[in-house]
Amino acid sequence: MDWTRKHLLGLENLSKDEILYILDTAEGFKEVSTRSVKKVPALRGKVIVNLFFEASTRTRISFELAGARLSADVLNFTGAASSTLKGESLADTARNIEAMGVDILVVRHPCAGAAEQLSRLVRSSVVNAGDGAHEHPTQALLDIFTIRSIKKRIEGLKIAIVGDIAHSRVARSNFWGLQKLGAEVYAVGPPTIVPRSLERLGVRVSHNLDDLLPEMDVFNMLRLQLERQDAGLFPTIREYARLFGLNGERMRRAKRDALVLHPGPINRGVEITPEVADGNHSVILNQVTNGLAVRMAVLYLISGGPSGAAPPP
Amino acid sequence: MDWTRKHLLGLENLSKDEILYILDTAEGFKEVSTRSVKKVPALRGKVIVNLFFEASTRTRISFELAGARLSADVLNFTGAASSTLKGESLADTARNIEAMGVDILVVRHPCAGAAEQLSRLVRSSVVNAGDGAHEHPTQALLDIFTIRSIKKRIEGLKIAIVGDIAHSRVARSNFWGLQKLGAEVYAVGPPTIVPRSLERLGVRVSHNLDDLLPEMDVFNMLRLQLERQDAGLFPTIREYARLFGLNGERMRRAKRDALVLHPGPINRGVEITPEVADGNHSVILNQVTNGLAVRMAVLYLISGGPSGAAPPP
Amino acid sequence: MDWTRKHLLGLENLSKDEILYILDTAEGFKEVSTRSVKKVPALRGKVIVNLFFEASTRTRISFELAGARLSADVLNFTGAASSTLKGESLADTARNIEAMGVDILVVRHPCAGAAEQLSRLVRSSVVNAGDGAHEHPTQALLDIFTIRSIKKRIEGLKIAIVGDIAHSRVARSNFWGLQKLGAEVYAVGPPTIVPRSLERLGVRVSHNLDDLLPEMDVFNMLRLQLERQDAGLFPTIREYARLFGLNGERMRRAKRDALVLHPGPINRGVEITPEVADGNHSVILNQVTNGLAVRMAVLYLISGGPSGAAPPP
Repeated sequence: MDWTRKHLLGLENLSKDEILYILDTAEGFKEVSTRSVKKVPALRGKVIVNLFFEASTRTRISFELAGARLSADVLNFTGAASSTLKGESLADTARNIEAMGVDILVVRHPCAGAAEQLSRLVRSSVVNAGDGAHEHPTQALLDIFTIRSIKKRIEGLKIAIVGDIAHSRVARSNFWGLQKLGAEVYAVGPPTIVPRSLERLGVRVSHNLDDLLPEMDVFNMLRLQLERQDAGLFPTIREYARLFGLNGERMRRAKRDALVLHPGPINRGVEITPEVADGNHSVILNQVTNGLAVRMAVLYLISGGPSGAAPPP
Repeated sequence: MDWTRKHLLGLENLSKDEILYILDTAEGFKEVSTRSVKKVPALRGKVIVNLFFEASTRTRISFELAGARLSADVLNFTGAASSTLKGESLADTARNIEAMGVDILVVRHPCAGAAEQLSRLVRSSVVNAGDGAHEHPTQALLDIFTIRSIKKRIEGLKIAIVGDIAHSRVARSNFWGLQKLGAEVYAVGPPTIVPRSLERLGVRVSHNLDDLLPEMDVFNMLRLQLERQDAGLFPTIREYARLFGLNGERMRRAKRDALVLHPGPINRGVEITPEVADGNHSVILNQVTNGLAVRMAVLYLISGGPSGAAPPP
Repeated sequence: MDWTRKHLLGLENLSKDEILYILDTAEGFKEVSTRSVKKVPALRGKVIVNLFFEASTRTRISFELAGARLSADVLNFTGAASSTLKGESLADTARNIEAMGVDILVVRHPCAGAAEQLSRLVRSSVVNAGDGAHEHPTQALLDIFTIRSIKKRIEGLKIAIVGDIAHSRVARSNFWGLQKLGAEVYAVGPPTIVPRSLERLGVRVSHNLDDLLPEMDVFNMLRLQLERQDAGLFPTIREYARLFGLNGERMRRAKRDALVLHPGPINRGVEITPEVADGNHSVILNQVTNGLAVRMAVLYLISGGPSGAAPPP
């Protein structure tokens, strides 16, 4: 297939073939990170701006490194230091940055829909690096890439996503991506944050992790936002950990080849114990490594990829 | 002519020929930003430090991109994160940065005269990116560049600069630059922030925007610093907008080919309505684009330009 | 000799030969900073992350520039903006950054031992850029480099380190380095912050700067952390300055070729007067310049140096 999209706003609107094309392109880029000189000239002279209105050091650094490995110039623009403080609108900020000849805007914003709104306002390519509780497509792509690289398939896998699904853009992007590729997805957690209504997204809802343990091929453990407790969404962190935390005892009841993912940063002892996070089911650090290759692939493809000015990896 | 200056501290002391030389050099660089690979090797191996003691994301990013397009290494040093917090003087900070072999210091500082003071302390080149209410020469140069690129001349144009002139370095630099090139400049706003004494700078002072509307070729609308209201310099923002804001109704009384500029960030609905900011008189985004070319020209020329190590664009 | 170390954690465990090897390598790199194109391709395609959990603009910029001159990609990660705010441990942060394929972590941390702890957790090389009151090896190396470049030797020199020795990582690293190279080191200051127990580190302790003045070849004046006064460690800043500050009167009783160093930033009028800081005994700015060459040498050597992929300077 030929890649034709200019933006990556979410996985909801991508086809199965498009998702597979990104994953396959990322396979090619993964090798670059193992070289002594970890650089290809694919985006030399292109400008990428990380436009982050929420703090996220890891995602920002991952995109910054992905850009650097493609030889692009990467600039950081964070909300806290920006003229949005002076009351400028997102639109004005974006139009201004675009007017400087920026090729790609990587946007993180607390409002759902911000990335899509931007893509309609500017001629630059836009990558959604997380918009409110809506989507975080590169995180889901790296999750899927990591699972596929070990399981060699996504089709037919049973995958539990555990935690605060209601507020999670990571969960949403995973739902779209995994289901398009044929996985059977379970949303797991207490009813306050994993409501039955999620079934409209095609996933199975469960309030009992223990029941699912023996069947799952993959557990993707979301970070518990500890401030949710104040909102009364679960009684205590301790009780949450007891019911929905992944620990060594639970892993012994899971499949021997089950994988454990976590988008980070980890609350050790809450949604996952150190024994599991650092244990042999865990592919958490693989996710981080693969994130670079996936983001290189996304930046490369939306810039025109093999049909654009950029040479292939 | 040959460029001989090592610093760009303001437009007050530049000759007409020097200003024209910067503008003409910027024309050459403007083309670079339209290339697929937006980079020339002119300043490869040179180091530029953005030394910003006031937050200004746009200006900082514009200089950072201008440096990157010239293949320089650009580092950011912001006041908030700096050892000036530990009580170190501006002079010590600058001398230290210079001792690291920095070629160009781009300085933004709340005190008038800071850039000039620095230029006397260090051997590096210094670019004034705004010093108190004194000068902001690259902003005025990009304003003038933008006007000239459309009007094909500055000589004889009638140009209104509207807003808080008393506290504006942008206004001051525009006054010097525009008048040296032969424009007729009007300072417009309420008497508290556009005092009659500005006439000593050669400009015409007016407290009535409506009177001037039909005659002006250009309106440069300054950002209203909303905190001035607390200082009692104008009664209400609403009254300011009513008397001095540029809106669609006013533009219909202006010349059909009048240009509207704004240094940004915009207070939409205060000094300018969205209709005008986004309308067909507006060249606000052109200013941003041109800012890159102008800053590339300045960095290139003060580094030695065609007579230095740097190859021509 | 062949360089074999992967990390630079401190000078305590380096041999005399290793210290000399770094200094000699730095001599080679010093020349690079005088070139018009201040860049060598030694670390092209390598990634360096400045992982700073304490603010330190100068040290961060010095490492950033050193990396840029070696053609590495340098990223900044500061504690304040990081996910450590969300409660992630140092270990998780470091493992994540490492998983992105980072070659060198430059770490500044408020806890003694943090750099060494990291070096056991990650496969990347680690450079200690200051860990609590423990060590700051590149600062001591640049101090020693600066002294040696003027005095042509370290062996036999009498060197006073004056100030808050008890809390100073700079002092500790200097003690190790200077004594391994044969200097006679004096720790000077009031008994509360220069306790007699420092003699266990091999240095001579003195509470009287005036007694030592005529004999010393070098004075390394530490920055007085003004907050120590609140802790009751000395009566007043004025009294400290009177007893232990270096001023013109004292320098007239010193050797004519005595050198004055200061790691910066300077409290002018406290531990050193402007007359001395800017006088002809002072080599304070040389220290800053040499810091770049020393840090280039360290980054180069721990990356494999001449035996690695990197070409010699």
